[in-house]
Amino acid sequence: MKADFAKFKTEIDSACFSEDPINNTLHSYDATNEFHLPAGVVRPRNEFDLQQIIRSANANFIPLVPRGAGTGFSGGALPLNKGGKLCSPSVVIDFLGMNKILELDEDDMVAKVQPGLVTFQFQEYVEQKGFFYPPDPASLKTCTLGGNVAENAGGPRCLKYGLTRDYVLAIDGFTGDGKPFHVGKGVLKNRSGYDLRHILIGSEGTLGVFSSILLKLRPKPEDRILFIAFFDDFNEATGMVNTLLHKGIQPSSMEFMDEFSVRAVERHGKFGLPLNYQALLLIEADGRSDEIPFLKRRIEDSLKVSAKEIRIAIEHYEQEAFWDIRRKTSPALRAFGNKKANEDISVPRKSIPAVIRGLREIADKNRINLINFGHIGDGNIHVNIMYDGKNPDDQFRVNLALTNIASLVNEVHGAISGEHGVGTVKKRFLPGNVDSVSYDLMRAIKKDFDPNGILNPGKMLY
Amino acid sequence: MKADFAKFKTEIDSACFSEDPINNTLHSYDATNEFHLPAGVVRPRNEFDLQQIIRSANANFIPLVPRGAGTGFSGGALPLNKGGKLCSPSVVIDFLGMNKILELDEDDMVAKVQPGLVTFQFQEYVEQKGFFYPPDPASLKTCTLGGNVAENAGGPRCLKYGLTRDYVLAIDGFTGDGKPFHVGKGVLKNRSGYDLRHILIGSEGTLGVFSSILLKLRPKPEDRILFIAFFDDFNEATGMVNTLLHKGIQPSSMEFMDEFSVRAVERHGKFGLPLNYQALLLIEADGRSDEIPFLKRRIEDSLKVSAKEIRIAIEHYEQEAFWDIRRKTSPALRAFGNKKANEDISVPRKSIPAVIRGLREIADKNRINLINFGHIGDGNIHVNIMYDGKNPDDQFRVNLALTNIASLVNEVHGAISGEHGVGTVKKRFLPGNVDSVSYDLMRAIKKDFDPNGILNPGKMLY
Repeated sequence: MKADFAKFKTEIDSACFSEDPINNTLHSYDATNEFHLPAGVVRPRNEFDLQQIIRSANANFIPLVPRGAGTGFSGGALPLNKGGKLCSPSVVIDFLGMNKILELDEDDMVAKVQPGLVTFQFQEYVEQKGFFYPPDPASLKTCTLGGNVAENAGGPRCLKYGLTRDYVLAIDGFTGDGKPFHVGKGVLKNRSGYDLRHILIGSEGTLGVFSSILLKLRPKPEDRILFIAFFDDFNEATGMVNTLLHKGIQPSSMEFMDEFSVRAVERHGKFGLPLNYQALLLIEADGRSDEIPFLKRRIEDSLKVSAKEIRIAIEHYEQEAFWDIRRKTSPALRAFGNKKANEDISVPRKSIPAVIRGLREIADKNRINLINFGHIGDGNIHVNIMYDGKNPDDQFRVNLALTNIASLVNEVHGAISGEHGVGTVKKRFLPGNVDSVSYDLMRAIKKDFDPNGILNPGKMLY
Repeated sequence: MKADFAKFKTEIDSACFSEDPINNTLHSYDATNEFHLPAGVVRPRNEFDLQQIIRSANANFIPLVPRGAGTGFSGGALPLNKGGKLCSPSVVIDFLGMNKILELDEDDMVAKVQPGLVTFQFQEYVEQKGFFYPPDPASLKTCTLGGNVAENAGGPRCLKYGLTRDYVLAIDGFTGDGKPFHVGKGVLKNRSGYDLRHILIGSEGTLGVFSSILLKLRPKPEDRILFIAFFDDFNEATGMVNTLLHKGIQPSSMEFMDEFSVRAVERHGKFGLPLNYQALLLIEADGRSDEIPFLKRRIEDSLKVSAKEIRIAIEHYEQEAFWDIRRKTSPALRAFGNKKANEDISVPRKSIPAVIRGLREIADKNRINLINFGHIGDGNIHVNIMYDGKNPDDQFRVNLALTNIASLVNEVHGAISGEHGVGTVKKRFLPGNVDSVSYDLMRAIKKDFDPNGILNPGKMLY
């Protein structure tokens, strides 16, 4: 198992390969704000290039790091030096050369795309044709569909429409030893053997590299309505989820911001938000145009029982202004520190109030800036810790807090990540969050797909 | 690898074990109408029994066949003699002693159940509390939730509500070597490592044995409306799926019956159905009571364009009478032969008319009785071949037809099974329906979960 970088270079098409230091720098980071210089960058133009690259990397023990747009929060796209057990610098696979829509089948409502396609570009394209691709991670304007599948990306609309997982019908690609797989088919039900598709989705580039993805589409909803409501008591905001579901309302999104998020975003953007409440709830519902008045009445009636202030956006431009408040939350936090730890915990809905209290205690104990917002409808809380990354004392207290948060999550039987994945950032917490038999099975499956361990080494599993 | 049945018997709790010939006979069949006598039947009372049974079976190379209610159409619950490579008669695991609802959490809308619980009993229980568990396989009054998860059971309502897969949050159980796993958590989003849950779902008892299952619930829909429409042209019936979706209508079910099914069920039950059309479509939509009039209008307007006759059921008793037509189709076919081959193909929606034509040609060529009905909304066609199982010539022609059907499915890039699974019945067609790399990965994963191959040997994979 001796890496042979020189041999790798002679075996792949030189037109796909670059060792240019500037290009290497451009592929050295992701949204964790960490930097690891790769040994080089390959840019396959098609699946033949891709297979050649993977086969040669496998034969010469060169770690490969598939990269979409580097918008991930868990370190999935970081080209770790001396990746894993291979003790060799990594080569990044850049998918910019494979970013096409290969097919849109309007009858079957499916589209085949290459992994480098930007999510938003795809969404705009299909919406022009009357279709809808719901997954909406915050980074949708830059992130890629390949990255979305590798991370099983979520977003606010997942409450009603499901995660990226729920839209992937088939994946073509290669295992770590360069064998081509064609997993899944363009059908809505498929019981042909074990469902390998779902193992590849969310595998963070550690099991296979994708060459094309077949996605399911929906018809575009006709209309939508948006509410912002303010609550004195966090329990009442959480309770609203079940209240609405039991009234036959399936909101497309149910987002919350804690009082610190509201203050941060108000300072950042002057939205005219009241600052004296414990929680802000943003509720969007969509559907046929004929049902919007009924949705409006039922949601409004429900909110009136416990919300202290309610605002409603009917027109599209008003709705965009409301969404802007939520979208600006993450940038607004930058004022509180040059570094952000993005926890992304997922807990049973009924434990949200207790978890929010627990998080507050952890923040106080460790003297950190901790701000919560996220997807209250599915119990997915984005816990943001803002700090000075250059201050070792700050870093130490943040690390302690992260350990405390992982314990809190385990206490309520939650998951350490709801959307962002494990990568490098949550790798140390995974063994405590899953049972040891499952962990060993994951390691065995990794070996099945990638016997030499060249795919994204050092991520997710030890 | 020498099976030691005597040692197995001494190691397990005798209170759980029976070799009674009558009891063996009662566990020898499933809905394939095939019979294989097991060597014995174990009936674990709890997860401790279950672990002891599996550990001892693993140590002594005794094949174990987990069995719900034996309603499967693919042979998953058949205790094959000399199962797989173990060359030992099988022992059936009967889950009648593990059929309890362990917990219903109304706040989180989840329920924890034991695998032996009958699906319909569970549905009735949660509906009394205002909840809804949608998966509705035709056998729901007798089949068990453990079997449903092992087979990823579907049903008419899956069109809107998804498959069993979409309701399983967590599974506790044991691998083939008796190691306990706790896969998944009671949260709606979980990115903690590879998603082992989805590999276990639909694994047909070959990867693990379940001791408890955590299921997601929904609120019960307030009301529903049901249509039956008759079409002169099969293409128009198929086209109705997209027409409705594009009008913002997500039907809960969209079932079709071909002219032969309609004739068969009319002969069986005297429903007063017209016999001069190519296809019958049954369309159900549910939702809030306030949206039913709008759903009714939109569906009716759409149907009027191409349907030749339309009947509407508003009241619950009328709806039950309509559903009875569809539910009686399978029993009605028994008049055409003592044996039924249940093909369960899943094809891209737009190829349905061509597939129906292709099936008709296969029927004519092989001189067989072939009758189609099923879930047109998701392209899942139940192809039923009725024949005389005691006539070797019949059997020969049916086998030829099944091979022809598998080829037809491969031509349109469909899946050989949409709901029923592979088991023994479609095992020979799986290698032609998935790529060889995927097939090898499935075999590798089987080894990871069940190193000695004691779990349901001889099923799904060679």
